[in-house]
Amino acid sequence: MDSPVLLLVLNLAGTFVFGLSGGLAAVRARLDLVGVIVLATVVGLAGGVVRDVLIGTPPATFRDWRYLAAAAAGGLVCNVAGRVLERFERSILVFDALGLGLVCVTGATKGLQFGLGPVQAILLGATSGIGGGMLRDLLLRQVPTVLREGLYAIPALLGATVLVVAQSLGDTGPVYAVVGAVVCVVVRLVGLKYDVNLPAPASAPNPVEPGTGG
Amino acid sequence: MDSPVLLLVLNLAGTFVFGLSGGLAAVRARLDLVGVIVLATVVGLAGGVVRDVLIGTPPATFRDWRYLAAAAAGGLVCNVAGRVLERFERSILVFDALGLGLVCVTGATKGLQFGLGPVQAILLGATSGIGGGMLRDLLLRQVPTVLREGLYAIPALLGATVLVVAQSLGDTGPVYAVVGAVVCVVVRLVGLKYDVNLPAPASAPNPVEPGTGG
Amino acid sequence: MDSPVLLLVLNLAGTFVFGLSGGLAAVRARLDLVGVIVLATVVGLAGGVVRDVLIGTPPATFRDWRYLAAAAAGGLVCNVAGRVLERFERSILVFDALGLGLVCVTGATKGLQFGLGPVQAILLGATSGIGGGMLRDLLLRQVPTVLREGLYAIPALLGATVLVVAQSLGDTGPVYAVVGAVVCVVVRLVGLKYDVNLPAPASAPNPVEPGTGG
Repeated sequence: MDSPVLLLVLNLAGTFVFGLSGGLAAVRARLDLVGVIVLATVVGLAGGVVRDVLIGTPPATFRDWRYLAAAAAGGLVCNVAGRVLERFERSILVFDALGLGLVCVTGATKGLQFGLGPVQAILLGATSGIGGGMLRDLLLRQVPTVLREGLYAIPALLGATVLVVAQSLGDTGPVYAVVGAVVCVVVRLVGLKYDVNLPAPASAPNPVEPGTGG
Repeated sequence: MDSPVLLLVLNLAGTFVFGLSGGLAAVRARLDLVGVIVLATVVGLAGGVVRDVLIGTPPATFRDWRYLAAAAAGGLVCNVAGRVLERFERSILVFDALGLGLVCVTGATKGLQFGLGPVQAILLGATSGIGGGMLRDLLLRQVPTVLREGLYAIPALLGATVLVVAQSLGDTGPVYAVVGAVVCVVVRLVGLKYDVNLPAPASAPNPVEPGTGG
Repeated sequence: MDSPVLLLVLNLAGTFVFGLSGGLAAVRARLDLVGVIVLATVVGLAGGVVRDVLIGTPPATFRDWRYLAAAAAGGLVCNVAGRVLERFERSILVFDALGLGLVCVTGATKGLQFGLGPVQAILLGATSGIGGGMLRDLLLRQVPTVLREGLYAIPALLGATVLVVAQSLGDTGPVYAVVGAVVCVVVRLVGLKYDVNLPAPASAPNPVEPGTGG
């Protein structure tokens, strides 16, 4: 993407909305003021840290104070206005969807910048997008959303694919970053709205305890 | 090890069987098709990512599409044949044992190649082997097998030790990589079969809630 | 800090007491001998690994056998004397507090050495200190202490701040490393003793399940 300013804005926006998602989950879990800020920060920064560790570069999210500020700001908003935000239906997952769209696109872009092939860049984008929500759910002892819902990994892969295909065809303008993010968010929100779930694989008739390996 | 082809084959095989183990755990936890693929991929790739991050090199498992293909293939097999594989007794843990043996050997080899000392290389191998199963259990909210069963860390250390000792004695041929993997798998399977557990340390008579710190 | 010996001693001490904290949590969760060693090692080393990965340098804790020895020694002590240590009130959290103080200071120092700005160095120190306990709680399926208790992140930030401010004012002697650690430990222990918790943010009157996003 030839527009570093747009990339930065998308990255910071993704960090902020993931921070909102983490902070709201903390409010809902009755954590205290500091717990809300900590979870917002961890969730907001996680995707970028995962992305940079997988590329093998020192995490930029940690060296540039603006990412930290954006994630913590999400937590502050939740401390102040968590009660209001909580009223919106599924607000945690809606902010999570916005973050997913923004981060999958910026992650894929950074992958291409660091010389990854197109398939790897798509996977890096999707992994970055998924990382924050996965950590949020783990820390609050939930099975991560990405494992429970079919339309979570797929929109992240779709959004990153839009950007990578556009850049591979020579279009390095900012338009397709936005298009990719929108595609991801829309598919994810449609999945949330209509509870779209892919079928489970054919399995033993009676459900057993997960992972007991019997 | 002087045989990069064998190393690659062992690495891919380890990735695939850890993918099977993760995919089967996902089938058992009633995740949907995408959840099965995602968990298989995460579990299959985790050991290699941990290994490379600890060495301080960009994760090869992410740059080389074959690792991803091997891990995802494990998930696909589980989506198609999970019902059949589930019938075998403790199939998740059997595949996990195979992965443990393969990855502890390849992890130790890569550690030696990157100039780690023999003890560090053994630990790196064991850590790589343990990483995948630990993440699988965490994501499905289980206490990791490595913490619950005595004969899990020990076979991984044994397998890596076989390889490192052989290489330290000048034998860089492929034989001892296979021997190390076999030693690890056999010890692990014997432990599984006979439920060998080491004694718990002397402790308070009545069990208390874990980690409450009271 | 101009005293690499003191820095090493503080680092090893922090690794050891985090190892004690992890080992005791394992004893309490009735893990076997190997499980106790493994959890002690993981918890003891986690903070340093997180710190080095965030800086973007190969984890020193893994290359220098002394860190491993210190963490495993914590586990050995718990295997031998866990029953005695368990009797002390909240012994897991007391060792955890000592580790927090030591690691937040050494983490901040290493951050400054690698050229991070003061705010980043403070955050790096706090993150390193928090990492071990967070992993311990995650692996035993607890909601991490840092999310549940207000006075956990704050003492870590305070301790790191003492050191960074002193060094920024030109005092690179060892005194303020010790002062920072003591400040962190005292504030944390006072919080533990009096169950100081910050207020939760204003929220919906009836508690709901965490993270369901409804």
